[in-house]
Amino acid sequence: MQSHRITMLGTGLIGDFYTMTLHGQRGRDRVEVVYSRSEERGRAFSERWGIPHSTTSMEEAINHPHTNVVVVGLPNHLHEEAIALAAAAGKAVLCTKPLARTADEAKRILDNVEKAGIFAGYLEDLCYTPKTLKAIAAVQSGAVGDVTWVRSREAHPGPHSAWFWDGRLTGGGAIIDLGCHCIEIIRNFVGKGNRPVELMCWTDTFVHPIDDEDNAIALIRFESGAIGQFEVSWTFRGGMDLRDEVAGTDGTIWMNHFLRTGYEMFTAGGGGGYVAEKAETEAGWLFPVGDEVSELGYTDMFSDMFNAMDEGRQPQETMYDGYVVNAIMDACYRSARTKQWEAVELEWRHGSTSRISKEALAYDGHTVIKSETLPDGRRKMILKDKDTGDFVDRIVAG
Amino acid sequence: MQSHRITMLGTGLIGDFYTMTLHGQRGRDRVEVVYSRSEERGRAFSERWGIPHSTTSMEEAINHPHTNVVVVGLPNHLHEEAIALAAAAGKAVLCTKPLARTADEAKRILDNVEKAGIFAGYLEDLCYTPKTLKAIAAVQSGAVGDVTWVRSREAHPGPHSAWFWDGRLTGGGAIIDLGCHCIEIIRNFVGKGNRPVELMCWTDTFVHPIDDEDNAIALIRFESGAIGQFEVSWTFRGGMDLRDEVAGTDGTIWMNHFLRTGYEMFTAGGGGGYVAEKAETEAGWLFPVGDEVSELGYTDMFSDMFNAMDEGRQPQETMYDGYVVNAIMDACYRSARTKQWEAVELEWRHGSTSRISKEALAYDGHTVIKSETLPDGRRKMILKDKDTGDFVDRIVAG
Amino acid sequence: MQSHRITMLGTGLIGDFYTMTLHGQRGRDRVEVVYSRSEERGRAFSERWGIPHSTTSMEEAINHPHTNVVVVGLPNHLHEEAIALAAAAGKAVLCTKPLARTADEAKRILDNVEKAGIFAGYLEDLCYTPKTLKAIAAVQSGAVGDVTWVRSREAHPGPHSAWFWDGRLTGGGAIIDLGCHCIEIIRNFVGKGNRPVELMCWTDTFVHPIDDEDNAIALIRFESGAIGQFEVSWTFRGGMDLRDEVAGTDGTIWMNHFLRTGYEMFTAGGGGGYVAEKAETEAGWLFPVGDEVSELGYTDMFSDMFNAMDEGRQPQETMYDGYVVNAIMDACYRSARTKQWEAVELEWRHGSTSRISKEALAYDGHTVIKSETLPDGRRKMILKDKDTGDFVDRIVAG
Amino acid sequence: MQSHRITMLGTGLIGDFYTMTLHGQRGRDRVEVVYSRSEERGRAFSERWGIPHSTTSMEEAINHPHTNVVVVGLPNHLHEEAIALAAAAGKAVLCTKPLARTADEAKRILDNVEKAGIFAGYLEDLCYTPKTLKAIAAVQSGAVGDVTWVRSREAHPGPHSAWFWDGRLTGGGAIIDLGCHCIEIIRNFVGKGNRPVELMCWTDTFVHPIDDEDNAIALIRFESGAIGQFEVSWTFRGGMDLRDEVAGTDGTIWMNHFLRTGYEMFTAGGGGGYVAEKAETEAGWLFPVGDEVSELGYTDMFSDMFNAMDEGRQPQETMYDGYVVNAIMDACYRSARTKQWEAVELEWRHGSTSRISKEALAYDGHTVIKSETLPDGRRKMILKDKDTGDFVDRIVAG
Repeated sequence: MQSHRITMLGTGLIGDFYTMTLHGQRGRDRVEVVYSRSEERGRAFSERWGIPHSTTSMEEAINHPHTNVVVVGLPNHLHEEAIALAAAAGKAVLCTKPLARTADEAKRILDNVEKAGIFAGYLEDLCYTPKTLKAIAAVQSGAVGDVTWVRSREAHPGPHSAWFWDGRLTGGGAIIDLGCHCIEIIRNFVGKGNRPVELMCWTDTFVHPIDDEDNAIALIRFESGAIGQFEVSWTFRGGMDLRDEVAGTDGTIWMNHFLRTGYEMFTAGGGGGYVAEKAETEAGWLFPVGDEVSELGYTDMFSDMFNAMDEGRQPQETMYDGYVVNAIMDACYRSARTKQWEAVELEWRHGSTSRISKEALAYDGHTVIKSETLPDGRRKMILKDKDTGDFVDRIVAG
Repeated sequence: MQSHRITMLGTGLIGDFYTMTLHGQRGRDRVEVVYSRSEERGRAFSERWGIPHSTTSMEEAINHPHTNVVVVGLPNHLHEEAIALAAAAGKAVLCTKPLARTADEAKRILDNVEKAGIFAGYLEDLCYTPKTLKAIAAVQSGAVGDVTWVRSREAHPGPHSAWFWDGRLTGGGAIIDLGCHCIEIIRNFVGKGNRPVELMCWTDTFVHPIDDEDNAIALIRFESGAIGQFEVSWTFRGGMDLRDEVAGTDGTIWMNHFLRTGYEMFTAGGGGGYVAEKAETEAGWLFPVGDEVSELGYTDMFSDMFNAMDEGRQPQETMYDGYVVNAIMDACYRSARTKQWEAVELEWRHGSTSRISKEALAYDGHTVIKSETLPDGRRKMILKDKDTGDFVDRIVAG
Repeated sequence: MQSHRITMLGTGLIGDFYTMTLHGQRGRDRVEVVYSRSEERGRAFSERWGIPHSTTSMEEAINHPHTNVVVVGLPNHLHEEAIALAAAAGKAVLCTKPLARTADEAKRILDNVEKAGIFAGYLEDLCYTPKTLKAIAAVQSGAVGDVTWVRSREAHPGPHSAWFWDGRLTGGGAIIDLGCHCIEIIRNFVGKGNRPVELMCWTDTFVHPIDDEDNAIALIRFESGAIGQFEVSWTFRGGMDLRDEVAGTDGTIWMNHFLRTGYEMFTAGGGGGYVAEKAETEAGWLFPVGDEVSELGYTDMFSDMFNAMDEGRQPQETMYDGYVVNAIMDACYRSARTKQWEAVELEWRHGSTSRISKEALAYDGHTVIKSETLPDGRRKMILKDKDTGDFVDRIVAG
Repeated sequence: MQSHRITMLGTGLIGDFYTMTLHGQRGRDRVEVVYSRSEERGRAFSERWGIPHSTTSMEEAINHPHTNVVVVGLPNHLHEEAIALAAAAGKAVLCTKPLARTADEAKRILDNVEKAGIFAGYLEDLCYTPKTLKAIAAVQSGAVGDVTWVRSREAHPGPHSAWFWDGRLTGGGAIIDLGCHCIEIIRNFVGKGNRPVELMCWTDTFVHPIDDEDNAIALIRFESGAIGQFEVSWTFRGGMDLRDEVAGTDGTIWMNHFLRTGYEMFTAGGGGGYVAEKAETEAGWLFPVGDEVSELGYTDMFSDMFNAMDEGRQPQETMYDGYVVNAIMDACYRSARTKQWEAVELEWRHGSTSRISKEALAYDGHTVIKSETLPDGRRKMILKDKDTGDFVDRIVAG
């Protein structure tokens, strides 16, 4: 039973969520060192979580002899530097989403990490929510047949920290912040070996006085023909909307991870206190989730990462996955500008996937379009004449 | 208190739904004449609904002296002829959706009807569901602020009659069958005076051995900047998915019209019988709606039509609306082919709509991006420096 | 096609709901005369609904020559007098719930009406909601097997008019106001011919400064063994909770009539206006129903009443049913006082019902308790030895 | 950071769930020894979970030198013996629910454990579900005001192992199996210091050929006046119904832990495999939860137990709580027999709780019954005259 000692880079909301997860529920891994750009925030963070060492030197934090894993919870523009330092230190490195601001940056990170031969993981929590894991397993077992259309949505009223709003630091707006989640969720359902071929993206800035998009949708066409659709918004009203849907030839999956999960509370307003991430009100009908770090996937994500490290295998979400996500987001921004379907440009490491196909049945020399049982037990078929292309209803004795 | 006597053209599923509505709940209007291409089906229909006259001559049905209103419940390729005959007879005419196969055909129908000066209505039931009517009123009262994004989805495993599958008779596939509903729902929420400017559409044929699309999505950009998104499918598994969503600057509306409306039944399989339109199973967990003709909007639709007739006003859904819908669908098919955003070409009768706008607030010379109350009661602001474009967090005493 | 002309007694909330229903959706029946104790309210009501005659004389209203039906929408203590006058006038009479304040009063009403030989109906709207009607039909078709347990709940923050709070005028508190609905819903599901034998009731007054109960629950044992459970509250927070559940040997039905019916709206507060009966807030997450008069059963209720009149049959809900409900409520109040199971005392007009029974299966000389298929396809049985009474697990090849 | 080495007694479904939890998610505590009455099941279990030692001697398992904690996952009739052995060994002991078959047996267990001075915990998982923990915190913070009514329901088609069905081994039927959960959930919401005073219970055996109850409901009156209601069933159809509700003077909480938690799947039947505990079907609409061991409370339960051990404090659920639950269940069985409200007989260790109270407001010398804002902004009050007891509506300018 191995355990790990972690250097945490960053003390923002994500640093809190990560450490709450790592130190929660009888875990055996511990954050030993924390780095913050601000001494004050670093001190508060280390007191909050019982962390022995706090420093304002990223290099010192990464090279601290007490730790063997570096977790990057910094703003996007600092990922490359932090990961380079961890690679130089020969330590395992886990980086929050998105991996980088662009595919080029992501590729440099990936190359660096692979050259160093260190363990590297992509902290894409929403691919690890308990519902998502169960749904991925269901899809892989064939429960919905061939996947035809995957929808993933993340929407809330906008992020909590200033740097998120600065496209120069992040690489974009709602797509970079939220779309990265959706894209990787979609990839898990259509299959990671299913190449993203081309996409069409629309963006607009409706509400916030910023230059980057606060709303976007994209359609990603995969090699199998399956379509992946993501919708992101920084202007949603009512909390945080986190929903995913999978349509297949033989089934359907609907998931709601946040606003409607079986906990409903009406309060006249007494009590107060934290309701849920991105909740907008503290009275009236509220819909908190039970255990946020579990429902948002943090728990299973870190389990997979550390288990993979212990077992000498790749985690479910790798930095190559992070690079693919960046490549897709690059194409999204291009498409939003050109208003064209844009090819997804990337170094593809997987093979190819065949087209979704349902074999057409034949009946009496015709193609069967549909077949249903009538209330009286007889069978009704809709048939297509192969020669004329005409369609007819045909009642067949049961 | 006026009442009307109706000629019903067509005896398919839609004829049954229409007549069930008209003869239901103590209504004062009655179907007096029915036309079917098949004598047998006409006879069965007239017996089922207690209709005095049945005929296989469309002309005879329309000109029957006992009726003053003609309801067209025929396949799409017969609408133009039927409406022309009704116009010639000088009778009020109500036509099922879609109005026509193309905008050109719709325009000829519209011109014909307007020349004749008869009352004409477009039977777009899903714009009249009780939830939709209440939501339209809420949006118009300002409950969600400026509408930014409307989503409308209709999906099921495919239609019940052969002719629906024949694009030559209908004008297309799932878009023509289902998209027409979604488009008009969207128009009601963004405002009917809000011109549809351009759109991007994707289609594919995943499952059924047909040439027309069995899945499609389109993004329609309106003059205000609002985006309308419809998703349609003939390959959905699990029943009929009828959902609409409205996002606005100050609110959110989610509607589920069919599969999750507060009636849930598990049955080991005894009992049997009709569950709901497009239901796929008769055992396990089932989700029927209470009163289909009400929940699908038929009841309120006919009330509006006949009340409008009595009051000498236009109904909520006019044949001009039907023409706009066809114009949008034409652009959808163009876009699916060209893979470009395509302009919506139509004769626009309304004015123009101004851009969605939220005024940016200022604080201490900076632009306010976001403002939220912290648990300790203090106010946190995210501000943007107008000169440098930098973003900062600022804590302000409560 | 017959139509009816109605005298409406009462101009409160229920009078509005009734008239909105009668005059709604192209109905052919009309309120022609309205009676109010207040001339001002009577005038406002008749203007609101376009009613020709308004009077403050109940006798005049009932005997008005233009009407053939009297609808009683008055406080409970006025039902007996009003119905007696209608009976004397030989007109059909429909009375709102509860029929009376006690079973004795209800019995006198019933005797009066039956002696006069007039058509009489009990306006129990919640037995006519579209979901309830569909569920009753499902239960009667055998979809849930034998009914074992029916739960019915109505809860809200308390009624809108002063007289409801005065037990001297109404006969009690939340049981009289809300329990009457639940009891009759339960009877429809266990079967109207299933005699209510005895019951246990608990009441308390938690919040309101009144002498009558603002919370209650009762368990009603029917002859078949089925249990009916109602829960009522005048102290519920969050709107109006209207839910019914049916458990059977082969199935389950869950109905939510009001707060969760597939319409969900978040609003920052603009717009305002009427949200729904008993809604508590005008901002945040709101859950209006689509069409209240339909969802609350008014539409189908009046259709059944007038159709029954036209067809010379009894309506689904008769005054005998109203009397049974009062007899059950009498027993509830007795039980709440004595803290004993109390017999339901009433003049029973139906036959008797046999005990719920599932036949026990045998396997290899043992009684089968349970049988389930294991993941590996084998069959696992839990068996009971008839002699020793011991239970054993037994794996049987598939 | 302490860790624990555990002896697991029992290899049934609950042993699997417990070990899955303890060995899951990077936990630092480990099962080192397992006891099974069957050598074969013990061996399979130890292989399944990587447990070093397996034995068929309970004494050997408990006294094994490698462990410091004993977890009792045995049938009810074996709890007393197992806990006595653990007490003799001076090891911490955690016992599954219910603690015993009767309050007498529970009291002997409690005395034994207290005399030995060992750490003892009551493994009541459903008081630890993430939703329940959040809801308890909300209630304690005052979010719903004074708690008036708590409902807890557990229902499924019946247990999986033979011994559960034998009342001689368990102490009863569905109450002993499921009611114990509900009772302790209720106590957490009304407050553990709120004495259960008396109760009324109804039971019946509708479906299964057994002598014990397969359906039951009880109403428990607590000292504050709050009512606790549990409903249990071994005849529910459709999966497992796990719902809790809390009503308070200022708010409402609804929790659904199992069948409706935001994961919905329709499958035509491919895929197969384990769906969820007590699921009845493998096709059609299915409603699995994401992570069962988390959603059913096992994760947080063991965290609390081991953290309490490490911190030298009592866990949330103690063996005294288990004893109180048994005392309440004893009264349930008495009440079901006598058909009376029965006093709960127990050695009470907490103080007393004052009555729920809302202070009545006064207006103009009258008692205010209700106050609401009309659409036109005016205030409507319902007032009670203190002398006459009459109720009046009064409109007050806004």
